[in-house]
Amino acid sequence: MKKTKKYSIPKGFLFATAEAAIKRPGRKDLALIYSEQESVVAGMFTTNKVKAAPVRLDMKRAKSGHGRAIVVNSGNANACTGKQGMKDALEMAALTAGALKVKPSGVYVCSTGVIGTPLPMERIRPKIAELAHALGKAAIEDAAEAIMTTDTFPKIVSKRIKIDGATVTFTGICKGAGMICPNMATMLCFILTDARIEKAALHTALKGAVQKSFNRITIDGDMSTNDSVLVMASGMAGNEPITRKSRSLAAFTSALASLTYELSAMIVRDGEGASKFVEVEVRNARSDRDAEKGAFAIANSMLVKTALCGNDANWGRLMAALGHSGVAMKEEKTDIVLNGVKVASKGIATGKDMEANERLKSRDIKIIIDLHLGKGTAKVLTCDLTGEYVKINAAYRT
Amino acid sequence: MKKTKKYSIPKGFLFATAEAAIKRPGRKDLALIYSEQESVVAGMFTTNKVKAAPVRLDMKRAKSGHGRAIVVNSGNANACTGKQGMKDALEMAALTAGALKVKPSGVYVCSTGVIGTPLPMERIRPKIAELAHALGKAAIEDAAEAIMTTDTFPKIVSKRIKIDGATVTFTGICKGAGMICPNMATMLCFILTDARIEKAALHTALKGAVQKSFNRITIDGDMSTNDSVLVMASGMAGNEPITRKSRSLAAFTSALASLTYELSAMIVRDGEGASKFVEVEVRNARSDRDAEKGAFAIANSMLVKTALCGNDANWGRLMAALGHSGVAMKEEKTDIVLNGVKVASKGIATGKDMEANERLKSRDIKIIIDLHLGKGTAKVLTCDLTGEYVKINAAYRT
Repeated sequence: MKKTKKYSIPKGFLFATAEAAIKRPGRKDLALIYSEQESVVAGMFTTNKVKAAPVRLDMKRAKSGHGRAIVVNSGNANACTGKQGMKDALEMAALTAGALKVKPSGVYVCSTGVIGTPLPMERIRPKIAELAHALGKAAIEDAAEAIMTTDTFPKIVSKRIKIDGATVTFTGICKGAGMICPNMATMLCFILTDARIEKAALHTALKGAVQKSFNRITIDGDMSTNDSVLVMASGMAGNEPITRKSRSLAAFTSALASLTYELSAMIVRDGEGASKFVEVEVRNARSDRDAEKGAFAIANSMLVKTALCGNDANWGRLMAALGHSGVAMKEEKTDIVLNGVKVASKGIATGKDMEANERLKSRDIKIIIDLHLGKGTAKVLTCDLTGEYVKINAAYRT
Repeated sequence: MKKTKKYSIPKGFLFATAEAAIKRPGRKDLALIYSEQESVVAGMFTTNKVKAAPVRLDMKRAKSGHGRAIVVNSGNANACTGKQGMKDALEMAALTAGALKVKPSGVYVCSTGVIGTPLPMERIRPKIAELAHALGKAAIEDAAEAIMTTDTFPKIVSKRIKIDGATVTFTGICKGAGMICPNMATMLCFILTDARIEKAALHTALKGAVQKSFNRITIDGDMSTNDSVLVMASGMAGNEPITRKSRSLAAFTSALASLTYELSAMIVRDGEGASKFVEVEVRNARSDRDAEKGAFAIANSMLVKTALCGNDANWGRLMAALGHSGVAMKEEKTDIVLNGVKVASKGIATGKDMEANERLKSRDIKIIIDLHLGKGTAKVLTCDLTGEYVKINAAYRT
């Protein structure tokens, strides 16, 4: 088995990658994740009404709470592909199951890339057996790279915790880049752990983790047809089984949440064309819901995002975005702090824009909005909007 | 009186402009519109919770239904300026009223430009008397130019209709460019007519006209703190007074609506950095409301806007935006037509993307989405998202 040097890998998982020329020739575009024993599986998926065929397939399969493998292609989303799309997703799963000698219902399929073009099955088909034969020859880094589309770096996080004296390992990989918005995005994330955990507990933990991570990031306000987070738990760590009533569920969930948070932050750092990493925090809103809505309104405002790109402490745009967001707010109570500089106090300028402009030259930007109305808070991660974003997305298919 | 050669001007109005160095030196940034007789006035204003001081002032004054003058400055929005902002707006109105020898309550004040910086009253104050003295020395073109911010051309439309045998003239000017979204935007619009019309009828006509014009355009999904549309009717055309029960109200409203539609289309054509003029039409939605929501979701999607910038018939992004918009839709029923080329039929590709790419090279783009679900329709105007938009907005204040 090809070993990774940098990451801890949970027991019981093997990886393989291949090139099927779905992306540009010479780039890996197929990945296989294999669980040596049957894993407990939980998944969360896009809420877009237009769902890619593999998403619809996996949603059904995840209900069983079990699985053996995930086969992924990048370069083509197999979305808006009608009946042929579902036929292709089923065939990918069946071929993989055949090659691995497992039940087809235990194979999950994920696709990411261009929408509306059928999968090039003639190029994928012959590669599936190759993938199965190559199991163990790829490291987690190879798999993370094979699922990339416009990502500029592979995204991998691993964690170790102790549960009942047993060492439990988590490794997550994901891809993101564009079309990232609330409730996930052209975002695929695969999390592997060797924890022993029951399916209901795994589902609960995943839901909690995603809520405060992947559901709190936005690149451009768009939401993809393919977003999927799958977690597989092989149960080989030797801990006592975690149930929804276990004390250890809290520790498990917390580790999972910190892993998904780190992965989601990596997605934002790698936002298409991004030159800034931005955290928007809304404090003392009437409710958490209001705080989240306000934070997203700011994070998705093109005018805010372009101002940040230009190191411009143009806080009036933040006020305008808030005022337009529909949240309860009073202009005359609102404070705005940009990288530690209070630029607006009780709704009016403090005269510190120049100082804030200087501070905004840093790559990391922290925006704090205090509404002074209640106790609701929320943090959202985003990036700036650059000429490079336009360039990437105007040319994506050409 | 300085005459315009190109536009018909309704009876009873005079214009003046001045330079107060609020914008770059050498550019007109003050405009005065004066009604020789008391006009009937109606107004519509931003629904942003953060409203500029002059907007709050005009909203109150418009309730009277009457007025004599509009004084406008560009370069500074007088928004997020606290109590000082309202003091300044009131002073601008009072100085103007004094110079014109009319009641202060008959003077409307509008501001557009940067948010959060107090008005440079020391530069505006001495120019007000100059403005009043100069009345009649400016043509409508000068006024249209003085209210511009990042606009690249002045926006003027005039129309003539017959009502009861009398010739009624309309002239409208507006400014737009960025921060343009549903329910108006950094958008100021002044419409003058010599029709005799009662205030309730004028308000009804304006509301109907704005609904299908300024409320159906979007540049970047943001909504300004300063949007205002004011209409003044001098009553000098000699028609029978138009009331809410008059037959002639329909003709009046229709002329007003066609004028506001043309002005709103000009704003979109002049969208910041825009290289395309885009009409998005959603047909056969479950309701008009759904159609509007779907059309706006497409018009505001950064991924759609960048694809259009790149002449890319990437209809999958339209499907994803629709699916994410919350409107009732069935992927397998949805047709998409781009500049006359059906690229998706019943949710799947027709294989005509190349042909559509060619057609998208035109400056004008017409997108038709047929949901085949009901009878709701809506049209929304927008533009593409270009590197130039980012450049303009990253550098707006610097």
